[in-house]
Amino acid sequence: MTRGVEVTELVLRDGHQSILATRMAMEDMVPICEEIDQAGYWSVECWGGATYDSCIRFLNEDPWERLRTFRKLLPNSKLQMLLRAQNLLGYRHYEDEVVDRFVDKSAENGMDVFRVFDALNDIRNLERAMKAVQRTGKHAQGTICYTTSPLHTNDKFVEMAKRLQDMGCDSICIKDMAALLKPQPAYEIVKGIKEACGDEMLVHVHAHSTTGVTLVSLMKAIEAGADIVDTSISSLSLGPGHNPTEALVAMLEGTEYHTRLDKSRLKKIKEHFAKIRPRYAEFESKFIGVETDIFESQIPGGMISNMESQLGQQGAADRINEVLEEVPRVRKVAGYPPLVTPSSQIVGTQAVFNVLMGPFKVLTGEFADLMLGYYGETIAERDPKIIEASAKHAKKEPITCRPADLLNPEWEDLRSQAEKLGGFNGSDEDVLTYAMFPQVAPGFFKTRDDGPKNLSQTPEQVAAAAAKAAAKRNGIT
Amino acid sequence: MTRGVEVTELVLRDGHQSILATRMAMEDMVPICEEIDQAGYWSVECWGGATYDSCIRFLNEDPWERLRTFRKLLPNSKLQMLLRAQNLLGYRHYEDEVVDRFVDKSAENGMDVFRVFDALNDIRNLERAMKAVQRTGKHAQGTICYTTSPLHTNDKFVEMAKRLQDMGCDSICIKDMAALLKPQPAYEIVKGIKEACGDEMLVHVHAHSTTGVTLVSLMKAIEAGADIVDTSISSLSLGPGHNPTEALVAMLEGTEYHTRLDKSRLKKIKEHFAKIRPRYAEFESKFIGVETDIFESQIPGGMISNMESQLGQQGAADRINEVLEEVPRVRKVAGYPPLVTPSSQIVGTQAVFNVLMGPFKVLTGEFADLMLGYYGETIAERDPKIIEASAKHAKKEPITCRPADLLNPEWEDLRSQAEKLGGFNGSDEDVLTYAMFPQVAPGFFKTRDDGPKNLSQTPEQVAAAAAKAAAKRNGIT
Ligand SMILES: [Co+2]
Ligand SMILES: [Co+2]
Repeated sequence: MTRGVEVTELVLRDGHQSILATRMAMEDMVPICEEIDQAGYWSVECWGGATYDSCIRFLNEDPWERLRTFRKLLPNSKLQMLLRAQNLLGYRHYEDEVVDRFVDKSAENGMDVFRVFDALNDIRNLERAMKAVQRTGKHAQGTICYTTSPLHTNDKFVEMAKRLQDMGCDSICIKDMAALLKPQPAYEIVKGIKEACGDEMLVHVHAHSTTGVTLVSLMKAIEAGADIVDTSISSLSLGPGHNPTEALVAMLEGTEYHTRLDKSRLKKIKEHFAKIRPRYAEFESKFIGVETDIFESQIPGGMISNMESQLGQQGAADRINEVLEEVPRVRKVAGYPPLVTPSSQIVGTQAVFNVLMGPFKVLTGEFADLMLGYYGETIAERDPKIIEASAKHAKKEPITCRPADLLNPEWEDLRSQAEKLGGFNGSDEDVLTYAMFPQVAPGFFKTRDDGPKNLSQTPEQVAAAAAKAAAKRNGIT
Repeated sequence: MTRGVEVTELVLRDGHQSILATRMAMEDMVPICEEIDQAGYWSVECWGGATYDSCIRFLNEDPWERLRTFRKLLPNSKLQMLLRAQNLLGYRHYEDEVVDRFVDKSAENGMDVFRVFDALNDIRNLERAMKAVQRTGKHAQGTICYTTSPLHTNDKFVEMAKRLQDMGCDSICIKDMAALLKPQPAYEIVKGIKEACGDEMLVHVHAHSTTGVTLVSLMKAIEAGADIVDTSISSLSLGPGHNPTEALVAMLEGTEYHTRLDKSRLKKIKEHFAKIRPRYAEFESKFIGVETDIFESQIPGGMISNMESQLGQQGAADRINEVLEEVPRVRKVAGYPPLVTPSSQIVGTQAVFNVLMGPFKVLTGEFADLMLGYYGETIAERDPKIIEASAKHAKKEPITCRPADLLNPEWEDLRSQAEKLGGFNGSDEDVLTYAMFPQVAPGFFKTRDDGPKNLSQTPEQVAAAAAKAAAKRNGIT
């Protein structure tokens, strides 16, 4: 008897978020849901992360409607989302009631598994969201953001797992957004968690593939006892994305482990996204292939493209390498935060500023907040000189409490502001949309009735472009 | 103390052969040789395979001159080549004296490690070339072509290793050209070889990355005792190519194994080829990414592009999937040969014919020869009905002896034919060039004095194309 390994399919969320800038339209996912539903996954990640933002900003699509559609089309599957804890799916801390209501509504609309993480691994920021999920009776997954620094040891990660267990989580996720998790630490951390938390604590491993090494890490994690791993179907995998689902299945064949995935269904899912992907070519990350420099810079792929576009806007696109070298310095000053939304953007933008204007000559508001504790605690002390400069810049004092403790109740305010907006439909879901994206929501409410947009090219446009390229290749131009 | 693992760098041969259709010009490799020479590789594969053909067919470059240049620029490195045993670098069997002379000249011009393989794993075809290498005092590596079929078991591969050892080889290579080698068989075969041949027998693993799973296989091979593994620098890796050298290094960090590669030099090598690669975009394989269907079809990536172009010439490009499904059937009829040059071309072309004209309605001359034993023995019996049809078609009888035993001495003939060609320089090297590519050599001899061609675009052309694409992306067209 071989041991079963469960799999979460990422293609409907993180897969296209990482490779196609989160632009995939719902209509390109709908036709394949039935195959996904029947393929034998543990869960299907399909919501949260950047999809909510992308829905209202680019796709004129109601994210709640998307969730309800997935619920309908995936009746046999556990739906999974990525939730930024106290930040929900926005970029600031929300007051606890907003957190509660968001979780309630997500559960009510069909969400099953909530992967809850905090960018700083500050456990206080996870607490409210985790409790909210537990109250709904849904699956509360506590998340450890994996990163490397002189302070981050395997033991520290295991300690955090123990605290997540004490919080009552249903499973523990090791989230490796930058593909930094090498095979040996993967083995040791999973082993450590199983020892500390007991064998029955489910361990779920999420790894990107950017550095080319994390499929091996999944193997080692499985050997150490990991129960569930994340993959994305091969036609939307690799590069800044994830290890291919089919490769995971093949990897385990003949070993003492097996998945229960149906290969003929995987083939259909693969073929579907192979057909869809070229239509989104213009959104495709340039960082396809493998990038082992990340082991030094710790920078996730998505963050690099952000910094590139910021530099580009300043006419300094050629200074990307300086910025890549600056990131670890900024990170040290900031107490070695993991680099994941929103800390990746905050550190990245400050690194761009440092290169363009001199080290910490100009501080962004967000970076000052990070230095002052308004995002939570970091693993290492932050640089006192820059804390001082931040306090001066932001005209605020450093804090040590849980940031959300300083927030006043805001739900009623948010509702009454939302009610003033044209197109607001009166639902709590709409209030949440406004709460998370107050700049974007008003425009979205107004245009919502026009229906979803599909930003991809038509198959005809793709074929014409391919024909043109082929003609050029053959010198026919 | 951790155990050292040695690495062969493939970028100068199989790396660009697999990803850039073997088109890389010598001048694009010269500037980085010093870094490669100092990086700490066990060997540098830089010659043989398809490079010889490509040199004279496309690059107007003397392959022997290329070898001498590598010898000069890589004074501290073992140079390695891929040799198709009795086929040398051509596509037919050569009489033994030609084999001897080719090996002598290769050694004399600087070759150190000869990886000798036969497409059918017929050990009789390896014998003469292996003996020739041993006579020169160079490293004779016996090769097992890895494939899967109902007949290919781990034990059979281990048996073959034992026979290679009996032949006196200095090391044994497991050559996985189609990325079919999964982690568990990798472990078991290496372990089996070490047990059968003794721990001191060097085991060298060559795997492509097409299916996305073979870096894990390298890990398992190393755990089973593999001494040397093949990789290609990350900027020319993955897809139909190989696992990235830097990922291999990262994979082993923290484990009980280590390489002695210098990471700062790897970074320079990576950056060099990252700069060069876009200039060869028009030659780039479309099969970038991962392709796990290969586990069913067993078809190496390069073979797919060949069949696609054959279909394209017949205006039937849309029938590629039928051909992919036909290949396993053709392979079964032919006794389950591994698919590697030249058997991959022979089987692939016959599969194309079968789809276009009906199953085995029209036989190619090469396929008939394969069925009749003129390439050697296969692991399984070949289909008697198609053998009969082949005999009729080719007007030849089936044979069971070593194919080269039927050949008459041919060296003097080859020399006198070569002497009649304009531009022939009188050397044995030129005779060998003529012997291997009698159609192409005459043209090459004539134009040789014009000097090497570089088929890549200039950096300026690449920049202009990128600017145009960016403009289009931003809607400026
Ligand atoms: Co992710
Ligand atoms: Co190869």
